[in-house]
Amino acid sequence: MPPDKLPRSDVCSLSAVQDGQQLRVAGWIRSARISKNVIFVALSDGSTADTLQVVIVRNAGHWEELIPDLLTGASIEVIGALVATPSASQPFELAAQRLMVIGRAPATDYPLQKKEHSWEFLRNIAHLRLRSTTHGALMRLRSWLSGAIRHFFEQRNFIEIHTPIISSHDAEGAGALFEVRAPQRDAAHHHFFGAPAFLTVSGQLHAECAACALGRVYSFGPTFRAENSHTIRHLSEFWMVEPEMAWYTLDDNRRLAEELVANLAGQALEHQAKELHLLERHSAGLCAKIEGLTKLPYRVIEYSEAIKQLKQAQIAFEYPPRWGLDLQSEHEQWLVAHCSKGAPLFVVNYPQEIKPFYMRLNDDGITVAAMDLLLAEVGEIIGGSQREERLDYLLQRMQRDAMEQAAYQWYIELRKYGTVPHSGFGLGLDRLLLYLSGMHNVRDVVPFPRAPGQAVC
Amino acid sequence: MPPDKLPRSDVCSLSAVQDGQQLRVAGWIRSARISKNVIFVALSDGSTADTLQVVIVRNAGHWEELIPDLLTGASIEVIGALVATPSASQPFELAAQRLMVIGRAPATDYPLQKKEHSWEFLRNIAHLRLRSTTHGALMRLRSWLSGAIRHFFEQRNFIEIHTPIISSHDAEGAGALFEVRAPQRDAAHHHFFGAPAFLTVSGQLHAECAACALGRVYSFGPTFRAENSHTIRHLSEFWMVEPEMAWYTLDDNRRLAEELVANLAGQALEHQAKELHLLERHSAGLCAKIEGLTKLPYRVIEYSEAIKQLKQAQIAFEYPPRWGLDLQSEHEQWLVAHCSKGAPLFVVNYPQEIKPFYMRLNDDGITVAAMDLLLAEVGEIIGGSQREERLDYLLQRMQRDAMEQAAYQWYIELRKYGTVPHSGFGLGLDRLLLYLSGMHNVRDVVPFPRAPGQAVC
Repeated sequence: MPPDKLPRSDVCSLSAVQDGQQLRVAGWIRSARISKNVIFVALSDGSTADTLQVVIVRNAGHWEELIPDLLTGASIEVIGALVATPSASQPFELAAQRLMVIGRAPATDYPLQKKEHSWEFLRNIAHLRLRSTTHGALMRLRSWLSGAIRHFFEQRNFIEIHTPIISSHDAEGAGALFEVRAPQRDAAHHHFFGAPAFLTVSGQLHAECAACALGRVYSFGPTFRAENSHTIRHLSEFWMVEPEMAWYTLDDNRRLAEELVANLAGQALEHQAKELHLLERHSAGLCAKIEGLTKLPYRVIEYSEAIKQLKQAQIAFEYPPRWGLDLQSEHEQWLVAHCSKGAPLFVVNYPQEIKPFYMRLNDDGITVAAMDLLLAEVGEIIGGSQREERLDYLLQRMQRDAMEQAAYQWYIELRKYGTVPHSGFGLGLDRLLLYLSGMHNVRDVVPFPRAPGQAVC
Repeated sequence: MPPDKLPRSDVCSLSAVQDGQQLRVAGWIRSARISKNVIFVALSDGSTADTLQVVIVRNAGHWEELIPDLLTGASIEVIGALVATPSASQPFELAAQRLMVIGRAPATDYPLQKKEHSWEFLRNIAHLRLRSTTHGALMRLRSWLSGAIRHFFEQRNFIEIHTPIISSHDAEGAGALFEVRAPQRDAAHHHFFGAPAFLTVSGQLHAECAACALGRVYSFGPTFRAENSHTIRHLSEFWMVEPEMAWYTLDDNRRLAEELVANLAGQALEHQAKELHLLERHSAGLCAKIEGLTKLPYRVIEYSEAIKQLKQAQIAFEYPPRWGLDLQSEHEQWLVAHCSKGAPLFVVNYPQEIKPFYMRLNDDGITVAAMDLLLAEVGEIIGGSQREERLDYLLQRMQRDAMEQAAYQWYIELRKYGTVPHSGFGLGLDRLLLYLSGMHNVRDVVPFPRAPGQAVC
């Protein structure tokens, strides 16, 4: 084949068995080392964490004019022959026959030089940081994880449901809602949708409509909180997968949740070894930590028991634990460390006062069928519940919470017509990825993070 | 196994080879027919378009008290034996041994009775319409189609990239942006993100950052337009898949687009036969129409040639065709009918004046490397282009369009550092589904449509 007609090969698809084969590759220079007789270029095309070593023998003069442009960040196309290198550290390299510099990257101002940059520095160049080794690996891992989550549900006959981003209700009662406004063309502004509209905090209530028609469904996409939190674990826009299942009790729900997490952890170790190995450089013991997620069943503790143990712990918590109050981060970490020795821990059956209106009241009349899954370091990654399917209980609870019934008429009607027991949960993709990648700040596992004061590009 | 411990079976998983097997199923009554000796209940659990016929023999008295509750919409659980029925219209039925009514649906007010309802009527009960046969089929088709799109890109080593919903720019220059506002706590309102924020109209510019680092990427999710359009083809919130590929020319881009559409159409015919067969009842010739998408290559016409042919057509178009103006819906439909005999048609190389700033200027200096894919009836389902990768051309164009450079510094830097030729397109999921389902209004192929005046639940 004439070199010009050669199709481009992805670096991830190359292998030493192609020894001697002519190839065309294209990507960005990670680094270039120019010595007297040979030039070595490490080329990354983003398809894998590995770079391809391109070797240029300086025997003929026509390479020389290229040398000033062979700089970190420049884009190049190379035609050459693959050479197996069984005795070298990498299995093969590319002996260049032709090299074209497509886009230069002036060394004087290209921000991503070969040295290690701080995460903070990289966060301010979100448009370029995906070209760094670690952020490239994080994005491939994120993409793989999103696919693995969907395959898990596809294999179990769940139907993917596209719950709306623009929403008229506040599923969590949290109050931290972004408002959505259409351009104001008239002096008297009318609501574009006929009523105030917000960015969704959860697809759950809509997923409930779908589960009460289609059986098992899930939504997977961005959700929003307008909280002014400047922490390493909060984002204004974050991804959640939210399965919702007709006929599932809280126990069924919990078993599905732990099966999901264990499955993803096991698959990550199997299919993402290269990315995890690379990330382990920043996070010692990463793979062992992930291995810990694969051991089923996870431990379960009742909220009331958890409070009892926290009180007995005789620790000077910043927030003293008390029945009827929510668990704080310091409590969660203590529980995970002491009740499950660092392994995942479910806390179930919380006081109804601290949980939203839609959770099913237990027979004790004071707790609801809620579950949270806690992990070491990242804290809560799953929150779920059995939903209140009994019309009279739901209406009582809404009345107690002084909710406006008219706005939730559609939700109430799910209980009025052919109601069924059902359950669901939300798993935070970003926090799970934080755990699986060993990164410390959730803003580093999202390509373009949105947080208070931060929407750089 | 004791009946109480039987796991629930999905109706979609049942088959006549289970003849004689004891089963437990749960779902909603589609219809019930009560005769002197036998009761027939058509049960739907949402896992398939098929209902399961449950047969109750009225020989023993204990069924009688259930009869008043065996109404359309009620939820029930049934334990019984599967009976193969080779001579009947359905391959098997369930001989009930036990039946429990879980949630009633009073015939006096349950809105979804057995009779056919208008699409308009159903649109106003979005929370219940997913229980209808057609809307159930549409949601399963939508879920399958979304998965098929992702599998297409996964198989080709594309990386899924989660481009943000909250955005600071207007990729299309369309101006029809929803604004995002945080709750105003202070009299002096500060921008939550440090600058005005909007709902994204396209993930493209962010996907370009990712493609210029990772090679081939795609985003897939909701996008927004604040246009006050009350048509059967427009939504305020709609789903787009947006692939973006480094090193792709417009021709590469076009070939990927047609391969995607043909692949999805072919797979739909193969894997979604049951749903399509059902939908064909409302749309004669549906499968033949879909078959038409599988024939490659699609026809391609230059914009200039299209205008010439429209002028020669001697038709009294509402909007007279003229070089330099955008194609109207009436023009698109004429072109599809006459230039490709109803088959898909690409129109390429539009005047730069009517296309956004990021499209690559062709060598003629007056057109840009744009492409639109037109289908009969639904019109444009794909819009794409080769992106302007040359820094000087991009800056000139931005200046001409009086764009604020500072706000796009990050986008400009993609051209400043290691720029590469790249291309991409956006495929509208909802319009493709409209075509594949034979439905007429895009509000009927989205579970909870958002349109001016419509955000019902």
